[in-house]
Amino acid sequence: MNGAESIVRTLSEGGVEVCFANPGTSEIHLVAALDHVKGIRGVPCLFEGVAVGAADGYARMTAKPACSLLHLGPGFANGLANLHNASRAHVPILNLIGDHATYHRKYDAPLTADIEALARTYCRWLRTSAAAKEAGQDCADAIANTHAAPGSISTLIVPADVAWTDGGQTGKLSTPPATPLPNMASIEGAAALLKNDQQTAILLGDRAAQGDALIAAGRIAAATGAKLFVPFSFSRVERGAGLPAVERIAYVVDQAVSQLHEFRQLILVGAQQPVAFFASPSTPSVVTPPDCNIFTLARSDNNCGAALEALTASLSASRVAFRPVEKGRPGIPGGDITLSGLAAVVGALLPPHAIVVDESITSGRGMMAAARGAAPHDWLVNTGGSIGIGMPLSVGASIACHDRPVLCLSGDGSLMYTLQSLWTAAREGLNITLVVFANRSYSILKGELSRLGQDSGRGALDLLDIDRPDLDFVALAKGMGVPGRRVSTLEEFAAELQSGFDSAAPNLIEVPL
Amino acid sequence: MNGAESIVRTLSEGGVEVCFANPGTSEIHLVAALDHVKGIRGVPCLFEGVAVGAADGYARMTAKPACSLLHLGPGFANGLANLHNASRAHVPILNLIGDHATYHRKYDAPLTADIEALARTYCRWLRTSAAAKEAGQDCADAIANTHAAPGSISTLIVPADVAWTDGGQTGKLSTPPATPLPNMASIEGAAALLKNDQQTAILLGDRAAQGDALIAAGRIAAATGAKLFVPFSFSRVERGAGLPAVERIAYVVDQAVSQLHEFRQLILVGAQQPVAFFASPSTPSVVTPPDCNIFTLARSDNNCGAALEALTASLSASRVAFRPVEKGRPGIPGGDITLSGLAAVVGALLPPHAIVVDESITSGRGMMAAARGAAPHDWLVNTGGSIGIGMPLSVGASIACHDRPVLCLSGDGSLMYTLQSLWTAAREGLNITLVVFANRSYSILKGELSRLGQDSGRGALDLLDIDRPDLDFVALAKGMGVPGRRVSTLEEFAAELQSGFDSAAPNLIEVPL
Repeated sequence: MNGAESIVRTLSEGGVEVCFANPGTSEIHLVAALDHVKGIRGVPCLFEGVAVGAADGYARMTAKPACSLLHLGPGFANGLANLHNASRAHVPILNLIGDHATYHRKYDAPLTADIEALARTYCRWLRTSAAAKEAGQDCADAIANTHAAPGSISTLIVPADVAWTDGGQTGKLSTPPATPLPNMASIEGAAALLKNDQQTAILLGDRAAQGDALIAAGRIAAATGAKLFVPFSFSRVERGAGLPAVERIAYVVDQAVSQLHEFRQLILVGAQQPVAFFASPSTPSVVTPPDCNIFTLARSDNNCGAALEALTASLSASRVAFRPVEKGRPGIPGGDITLSGLAAVVGALLPPHAIVVDESITSGRGMMAAARGAAPHDWLVNTGGSIGIGMPLSVGASIACHDRPVLCLSGDGSLMYTLQSLWTAAREGLNITLVVFANRSYSILKGELSRLGQDSGRGALDLLDIDRPDLDFVALAKGMGVPGRRVSTLEEFAAELQSGFDSAAPNLIEVPL
Repeated sequence: MNGAESIVRTLSEGGVEVCFANPGTSEIHLVAALDHVKGIRGVPCLFEGVAVGAADGYARMTAKPACSLLHLGPGFANGLANLHNASRAHVPILNLIGDHATYHRKYDAPLTADIEALARTYCRWLRTSAAAKEAGQDCADAIANTHAAPGSISTLIVPADVAWTDGGQTGKLSTPPATPLPNMASIEGAAALLKNDQQTAILLGDRAAQGDALIAAGRIAAATGAKLFVPFSFSRVERGAGLPAVERIAYVVDQAVSQLHEFRQLILVGAQQPVAFFASPSTPSVVTPPDCNIFTLARSDNNCGAALEALTASLSASRVAFRPVEKGRPGIPGGDITLSGLAAVVGALLPPHAIVVDESITSGRGMMAAARGAAPHDWLVNTGGSIGIGMPLSVGASIACHDRPVLCLSGDGSLMYTLQSLWTAAREGLNITLVVFANRSYSILKGELSRLGQDSGRGALDLLDIDRPDLDFVALAKGMGVPGRRVSTLEEFAAELQSGFDSAAPNLIEVPL
């Protein structure tokens, strides 16, 4: 067994089931090992940002690490933007990077790069495997460290000669330590705040807006009158009819300030203090009122679910019924395309158990509200602000949950960063309906430019418009093997959306705006 | 004048004429300033790898820096792979990166990243501008440092509040120091080697295979019997009928060894010692014979042209006629598509003054030989091994030399990394003919896999084949606003290639293999 095979066997024994791969020559022994060792599904990607973003989507749905397989420093660099997003989603991911053979590095061949320097930026665990006999254990350590609460990125760099040399041994897997509860003072402190008759908001971060944690939060809200929020940038929220209501903090600073202005207290559960996405000369960085008492019940590396359960118990609210969101869907509107009409169609037709991946930026701002009373579903958004995560997340989520429909809502600008993900969706036959809102611009930036109050001319707009020529997303989808169509009315959108869901296969709908 | 405007005015006064841009909110004041200050051409890109690769292509053709405009850490990260290539091309590039406002960084908003840590990997000069009044001078320093021999990458990080605050001042531009000659001992040493009757090769690196440097090298070869080579990975070679012949060292190790086996002496002129692109268990890392004396005439940060002129003088060869490559083109073959037939068509039809950007990997290995006797032209290839540079280079080269036709030869796998460059080509109306060799696989990797001698199964091939579905490049081009067509015979290829050159507009030819 060579080093590569020891790594792949350790992955398999360590519960890693999927490898999103864009390999090169220095990974060829790992590719061969993935072939020999059964049990790991290799998913080819045409660009590394797809691989890493897909690993993020897979982890958000399973809380388990997938593996990416990337080619030296530049291949890893192509994955960094979505690794930035993944680091903010606090998901487990294991990157495997092939490097030059150890003895070849000194020659500074063209692809030589300081991979460790690049990896240090986003990886909490990082190691270059030194010998074939250690590679398996290195991999086991890498897997264990992805489970560091709340979920962490590990990167194992594998020199080619470590991969091809015999003497590999499967690594010994350690049990990850239990995620710690916050201390009792935090739970008692939060309970005291919730009893003092001040208006209180609770901000639910990583994994606190899902499953039992969400139910516990719902009970606390019902028992105390507190209101539940999620940050603008969240990794995954379970929502829909019958579940506790959570409200998303807005991107637009004035709206966020308005949402939070009545609250004198904010309790953080695995979330950071809410702040503006960007600073601006005319709006504040902090969106909570100046006199708001911000209290941390649980950090993101605490067990947020257990903290909420403990708080529920402390408030004697464990049997309190939470107020469920009522079932209710918008009617299907007709006529010309409007953003509110599009949102209503999505709310009306969203299938049960859908996974919505929302990178619709300016066009989709009404979507969450419209789908509020739909059957229970998951909502995933961009956590780190680096656009181009929507379709990669959708690929990963669909591979994680092959029996659930995925609806990807994307801006046209966002989609163009990682368009290659369409091909992977086609190759793997994934149940993804992609709606692209084609406003032919980086609309959010044009808004910023107009806010400057300056007389902006053609030169500035040339850099923010995505037109002349217009992108033809139906043609782009066809090029990747994905059927697409363009709609020009809300009736057509509704018909094509339903048809997309019914197809249970990758498909694209272009909505010109 | 705010900080942003002081930066853009300094760029303009510093001779920077083009900005390849993929901006976001934190760059919006720089976008506005690019609009107000005339003289800099903003070129929009849909992905940062396109912007950085285009800046590389622009610099290879002009030896001047273009500017990229990128969005915080993740936007910069998306440019890193082509910055890796650019660092190996030793070209001047100035990256402008917007960052959060200084006072906003402490809130760790989603896009917050350690931009400096990322930039340190490939940038010889790096600074975060601290105040609006210093931003102009920071930019002037950044420009000056791009000229550090042989050409260098500078990165200026501009916090949003530095950009928007008033008090900016145009920076004072310094004259870059002259590029030093190597010491006389190097020149005398090389001259002595060239007179000792040993078989000698001369390896021409950065800017040594162009212009007067190439002519001087040709004289030296004619006077001494030495043979001229360029590395497999070179930034730009001038070639064609009437110019001195240079031979490219092969990618395949056995071929490279065979090319160099007769030489007892190798003189490096701005080039590194030739080594294998990758190590392998069965081939050597070093491709020169073990007893070959490797001598450095000039390092890449020396003035290689002046060194060659000095060597010519030392050899009393300044008036020696170099042996020009004879004019001669292949005939246009017909029939079924073969790699040698495709190369012959390119050799037969290549227009005068063409710029060939060659990222054709396995499919285009005969192209340089077939175009050897064509009218003078430039040949540019991937310098750092990170695929996805071909079309970005073509965009930059075409903007630098708008009166010259660009022929981009691309593998299908390579093209998919930065396919978005087609849209920029369409937007800017660039004279680029793109030929994509669609072998539906990472063919170079399948070669490596088969060399392992292992029985590789479907699982491994699934990760190396780009099929099921086949990519339809004609549709992809249409989606980006670029006309494309597919050819099935060599006659069709010849007709479409000529038609592409005649169009003087962006166009794609898909060649299924």
